[in-house]
Amino acid sequence: MSEFDLINQYFKTASVTREDVALGIGDDCALLSPPPGMQLAISTDTLISGVHFPENTSAEDIGYKSLAVNLSDLAAMGAEPAWVSLAISLPEADEKWIASFIHGFHQLATTHNISLIGGDTTRGHLSITVNVIGFVNKQKALRRDRAKAGDLVCVTGTLGNAQAGLKLLLSNCSIDKQFSMLVESLNRPQPQLKAGQLLTNYRVAAIDISDGLFADLQHICDASECGAMIELNDLPLSRELETYYQYKPVWSDILTGGDDYQLCFCCSEADFMSIQPLFEEHQISLSCIGRMVREKQLLCTLQGEVQNSLNVKGYNHFEEER
Amino acid sequence: MSEFDLINQYFKTASVTREDVALGIGDDCALLSPPPGMQLAISTDTLISGVHFPENTSAEDIGYKSLAVNLSDLAAMGAEPAWVSLAISLPEADEKWIASFIHGFHQLATTHNISLIGGDTTRGHLSITVNVIGFVNKQKALRRDRAKAGDLVCVTGTLGNAQAGLKLLLSNCSIDKQFSMLVESLNRPQPQLKAGQLLTNYRVAAIDISDGLFADLQHICDASECGAMIELNDLPLSRELETYYQYKPVWSDILTGGDDYQLCFCCSEADFMSIQPLFEEHQISLSCIGRMVREKQLLCTLQGEVQNSLNVKGYNHFEEER
Repeated sequence: MSEFDLINQYFKTASVTREDVALGIGDDCALLSPPPGMQLAISTDTLISGVHFPENTSAEDIGYKSLAVNLSDLAAMGAEPAWVSLAISLPEADEKWIASFIHGFHQLATTHNISLIGGDTTRGHLSITVNVIGFVNKQKALRRDRAKAGDLVCVTGTLGNAQAGLKLLLSNCSIDKQFSMLVESLNRPQPQLKAGQLLTNYRVAAIDISDGLFADLQHICDASECGAMIELNDLPLSRELETYYQYKPVWSDILTGGDDYQLCFCCSEADFMSIQPLFEEHQISLSCIGRMVREKQLLCTLQGEVQNSLNVKGYNHFEEER
Repeated sequence: MSEFDLINQYFKTASVTREDVALGIGDDCALLSPPPGMQLAISTDTLISGVHFPENTSAEDIGYKSLAVNLSDLAAMGAEPAWVSLAISLPEADEKWIASFIHGFHQLATTHNISLIGGDTTRGHLSITVNVIGFVNKQKALRRDRAKAGDLVCVTGTLGNAQAGLKLLLSNCSIDKQFSMLVESLNRPQPQLKAGQLLTNYRVAAIDISDGLFADLQHICDASECGAMIELNDLPLSRELETYYQYKPVWSDILTGGDDYQLCFCCSEADFMSIQPLFEEHQISLSCIGRMVREKQLLCTLQGEVQNSLNVKGYNHFEEER
């Protein structure tokens, strides 16, 4: 089967139809009609086998996740996704693998009405680069540099699940049913698009937690030129993770564990009072975990006591491997 | 040096400033303001070391070429480039390599006023995926499906140089000065943006010759549901290539050689009469090499005689390697 046949057969059929796609896959470029008066939000992420997912991850999960991590970036800006390009390197043209990959990718694309508009297929080590484009109202995007000292620090969902799921997978033991949700969190992250879109009506600084809470909140601190104080006891943990840790959470893992794809955002106390019921209405779980401070450092407290012994840093592709 | 330092230090400083970039590198997404009333043209291409360029290619040439091949796709639609994302996998964080890569990339980006708006840096086998976005007037893009039987088949520039350059490089011999232009054609292709933009005022089907004339013209034939007759003696060859072949051109190499990045387009005879002087005015070399026909096959003639013995097909990433 030739490269062109591959592209035509699977990628064309996997695409959602949208009226703003004047020309999709099959020419030198896609042609798109952006909505008047909106800004475009664009994100690119690469997933490499053995670095961003274990080598034995299923094709379907890889397909799903490669789109999910990019949608998470759009969620962190409060944007609504529309179009996606997919560049994929494969060691061989394995038809079954590709069909399964596209199935996972398509599932998520359909849920969010996203059209696959183009890409490239090449031979090489398994690697996927996704470029996603969405729309956001002018002046409404959730930038990282909008936090102020005194803001509350909030997160959606629960933290640390994906990190624990990865450890379970890498342990090579059979995984107990009670922990399947942890592995699911790793392989099938839910981009918090609705949460991001709801936040665009407030003065909010936001980021998605892809490299771990500590590293990502540090980015907000750097961009907003302030610091933060986090209370460890306020970090939202799933029942499954509590069980996994036997009720003795390893804070450094939870603070640095990547792949959660929840949103971390900072808002005023007044705004929090209206965001809380709004999120409740949309069944989005929300926790307040700390406060932004003037002093430019990121500190953690445990029941109010500063923890200096926590040795945490964010995930870095060139310094360590998961 | 951390991943974030790398990105910040080199990629931020390498970016052209454009008014339509509301937010560039450094947040979860870039924020862009597309011009009202225009369509977006988007293309994605991946270059893998050892597949799309020889492994000993200089970082600067790789940087240049990774942007050039994407701009060539925009040229083939008649679009004007504006924004680019760059996803790069590197075996190690080699500062000198990256500075040199960005230098080559930046040279071409500056020439065409293109802003680097984001991307991703990961550790892996050397691989570069570029996503470029440009603008084109509605209904004016040069699609592949616009050719008609009776149209003239035209190409810009000369063909086969990059293919010969690659053969010279792979021969491991020292390269004679008289052939340096052939290697230059391989490493520093000139995307035919001006030619493409000039053609948007005509009813034209166009494609860029990245996989070889034969394979790419076949794409126009397929999309336009017709065939073509090409006269080999009319294929434009550089003096350097004539010398390289000692005046006995190997037609199958010239027809299938990739990486030329010239434009191939089809237009009516009447339009050709006004395109020819227009291209001359802009010093764009132009050749008429054949005609579109009703019968759905792609034939080559030599001084009018059909050549059935030419064993040609396009470059296919999964079936052969250069």
